[in-house]
Amino acid sequence: MSLAIDTDTARKLPATLISALTDLMGDRFTTGNSAREHHGKGEAYHASALPDGVAFANSTEEVSAIVKACAAHGTPVIPYGTGTALEGHTLAPHGGISLDVSGMNEVIRVSPEDLDCTVQAGVTRNQLNEYLRDTGLFFPVDPGADASLGGMSATRASGTTTVRYGAMRENVLALTVVLADGRIIKTAQRARKSSAGYDLTRLFVGSEGTLGVITEVTLRLFGIPEATRAAVCSFPSLDDAVNTVITIVQCGIPIARCELLDKTAMKMICDYGKLDAYTIGDTLFMEFHGTEAGVTEQAEMVQAIAADFGAGDFKWAAKPEDRTKLWEARHNGHYAILAATKAEQHVMATDVCVPVSRLAECIMATQKDLAESSLFSPFIGHAGDGNFHMSIIANYNDVEESRLAHEFHDRLVKRAQDMEGTCTGEHGIGSGKMDYLEAELGDAVDVMRTVKRAMDPDNIMNPGKMLHL
Amino acid sequence: MSLAIDTDTARKLPATLISALTDLMGDRFTTGNSAREHHGKGEAYHASALPDGVAFANSTEEVSAIVKACAAHGTPVIPYGTGTALEGHTLAPHGGISLDVSGMNEVIRVSPEDLDCTVQAGVTRNQLNEYLRDTGLFFPVDPGADASLGGMSATRASGTTTVRYGAMRENVLALTVVLADGRIIKTAQRARKSSAGYDLTRLFVGSEGTLGVITEVTLRLFGIPEATRAAVCSFPSLDDAVNTVITIVQCGIPIARCELLDKTAMKMICDYGKLDAYTIGDTLFMEFHGTEAGVTEQAEMVQAIAADFGAGDFKWAAKPEDRTKLWEARHNGHYAILAATKAEQHVMATDVCVPVSRLAECIMATQKDLAESSLFSPFIGHAGDGNFHMSIIANYNDVEESRLAHEFHDRLVKRAQDMEGTCTGEHGIGSGKMDYLEAELGDAVDVMRTVKRAMDPDNIMNPGKMLHL
Repeated sequence: MSLAIDTDTARKLPATLISALTDLMGDRFTTGNSAREHHGKGEAYHASALPDGVAFANSTEEVSAIVKACAAHGTPVIPYGTGTALEGHTLAPHGGISLDVSGMNEVIRVSPEDLDCTVQAGVTRNQLNEYLRDTGLFFPVDPGADASLGGMSATRASGTTTVRYGAMRENVLALTVVLADGRIIKTAQRARKSSAGYDLTRLFVGSEGTLGVITEVTLRLFGIPEATRAAVCSFPSLDDAVNTVITIVQCGIPIARCELLDKTAMKMICDYGKLDAYTIGDTLFMEFHGTEAGVTEQAEMVQAIAADFGAGDFKWAAKPEDRTKLWEARHNGHYAILAATKAEQHVMATDVCVPVSRLAECIMATQKDLAESSLFSPFIGHAGDGNFHMSIIANYNDVEESRLAHEFHDRLVKRAQDMEGTCTGEHGIGSGKMDYLEAELGDAVDVMRTVKRAMDPDNIMNPGKMLHL
Repeated sequence: MSLAIDTDTARKLPATLISALTDLMGDRFTTGNSAREHHGKGEAYHASALPDGVAFANSTEEVSAIVKACAAHGTPVIPYGTGTALEGHTLAPHGGISLDVSGMNEVIRVSPEDLDCTVQAGVTRNQLNEYLRDTGLFFPVDPGADASLGGMSATRASGTTTVRYGAMRENVLALTVVLADGRIIKTAQRARKSSAGYDLTRLFVGSEGTLGVITEVTLRLFGIPEATRAAVCSFPSLDDAVNTVITIVQCGIPIARCELLDKTAMKMICDYGKLDAYTIGDTLFMEFHGTEAGVTEQAEMVQAIAADFGAGDFKWAAKPEDRTKLWEARHNGHYAILAATKAEQHVMATDVCVPVSRLAECIMATQKDLAESSLFSPFIGHAGDGNFHMSIIANYNDVEESRLAHEFHDRLVKRAQDMEGTCTGEHGIGSGKMDYLEAELGDAVDVMRTVKRAMDPDNIMNPGKMLHL
């Protein structure tokens, strides 16, 4: 495995396709190496795989025209937002056109009365929340990166607030999608709920660009809570921290965020974010949303639970600027880890998700496995959902070290699956976890293949991802 | 349109199929008229359409064997739970086997730590909640009828608590499904969230038996709140009541139930439920869940909002038995309406759902349309979701009266769709709303057909429902 960019893999696009796309888009279509290299490079440990061209689309109709042109030539189409996916989703192992929608970044409509909005696929979550600033509303789903909302829909993303507000699965109301033959559909009306036909919205949410290109997203919004308080608290052990989380969830306390970091991750984040006030230990980052009285009540209940598990002092961040600093540090976790790696190392950022009742057991077994290996991997978990990340830092150009890292990863995923968990809670399958998907769902993956073949018979939509065909 | 049961429509099942099913099931398979009539009769205004035989399955493996036998003969399979669907879902317009799973009524597993459970498809919502009684947990989704959880999954049902707890869409974690060729799949692991592959769970939730037979359901559960209070309050007009609801939702008050009834429906429900303490007017039924302090706070905020819209006195039902009586009356709304119809009349129970901002406008226009007609239709709405029901009472054997009722219904659905709403918020498409689905989603319905044809190429799964093929 190598991160060196190999420009020799370029395939020749049909001249008629180049000419069609150039006629359509002018200089927003390019076969230049710089754009190809940028779009064919993963964020993580995946080897690069360059597209043969990059098309910077500016409308749903243009996406439709591009897909039609590609379909006529059997040329692959790889949708591209911010390129922050972690399982090689945007790589082009079979060449083709990287269809970049980052320029489609218009907030089309906000309806404060309905608590919803419609955005173009390239709008990022931070851009949307900046736009919403004066409305008293916010969009809660927050993967670490400032990803595009089209990409977050496509990977069924979630994040720190999912324990309270749900993931993209729950928060996408409707999508505009360009199908593999270029037709444009809208998956649903804007009503809050519907029983009208198959739930195409949720078929495309998490489809990773393999069924069509998402060009517009209608999202649920939430009122910014009257009161917000955040707290950080360290525990004698990871086990105590996990059991605190399990108890919070079981008591039905509507905690808005509940993040678990081991000592290693906590040190990296404090170093990177220049946070010097916190104990370097196994730690929970928490946030409470509600009315003033409600937040106080939640905080008291959680403090009592944490005390039962030997928690150290709570450090409260009531001021908005303190909270922002805290959550920026947490959201920069992946980058803090990247910053702590050596030149020859890379990070395999993986995630699994298990039923909460198995979380402590899964984490403890993984920490034991890690301690017995020569590997190094900080741990960060969305503990309230049973979802956690391992960032396996290794020199993946060293054959033996790479083998050990992959074997550790393999054991981690199988351990989670054996506990009725899933090989990915929020990163997706991409090109990295296709075998694990087969192992997890068996014949159900055949159904996925049936759907894929019916909707994209020539396999032009993001080929080589999610499913072995 | 007639409700008379026509036994002459019986088709001859192939003798080899009868013999195969008899060998498999003994007397749990029958071609007797009584069972066929019971299973071919809709609850609503739809004409009967009898299956040719009824199979009372007792396990997933047996469902698989039945479907395989039917598939070998190209014989339709119509999944059947409690027969409480309202859009003719369980009718057999093309004959075939009604596959009754009501005997599959075992609660397989409850995991209080994970707040989830797995049940066989025939378990009803009341049965589950009865089973959960001592665990401190409950399952919130409550369509009026005591429907089976398999059927509720298949129609993507919701109900009075959806405004707080979500619909079946949000609360089904995984399904076991028998496909059209008899293969058995599990759509997902038990983890609270996953990004592993297409969301097959939500493809089957709302598929109305047209893609496979749901045999097991894994569901989210919730802790019974520490405190619950219910209130009833009447308003000077329907408009005032709707605006109260819109304000509650926009303020982010986590109201657990928020039901709107017009004068007509309120009178029927009070008569049927022998509730004599309430004003007969346009009314909200509300419920608050939380801690003691939280419930008090919510109730105070809602009372202040309601007062702004001229609400009459709140009548509180704090005692569990009073609340039970109240919500039983509300849940019996459909039966109260049936009880108020004359011998020659039937009820067309329909529902639409619009963005909440359009709810008042949609209701007012519908009430005006109703007032200008000679028709009679009580109104009940899950107002917090923008979802409402009209129960159009008419003599559907009278050609002219039936025409007027259908034209009123047609205008109602188109009005909702013109307001970015949907032709059904929770009843489903069945055989009653197939044309409306086409009008609502256009080319997206072609995608549904593509999926249906790929997964059920011989169209044996509940044919004649949802999609024109």
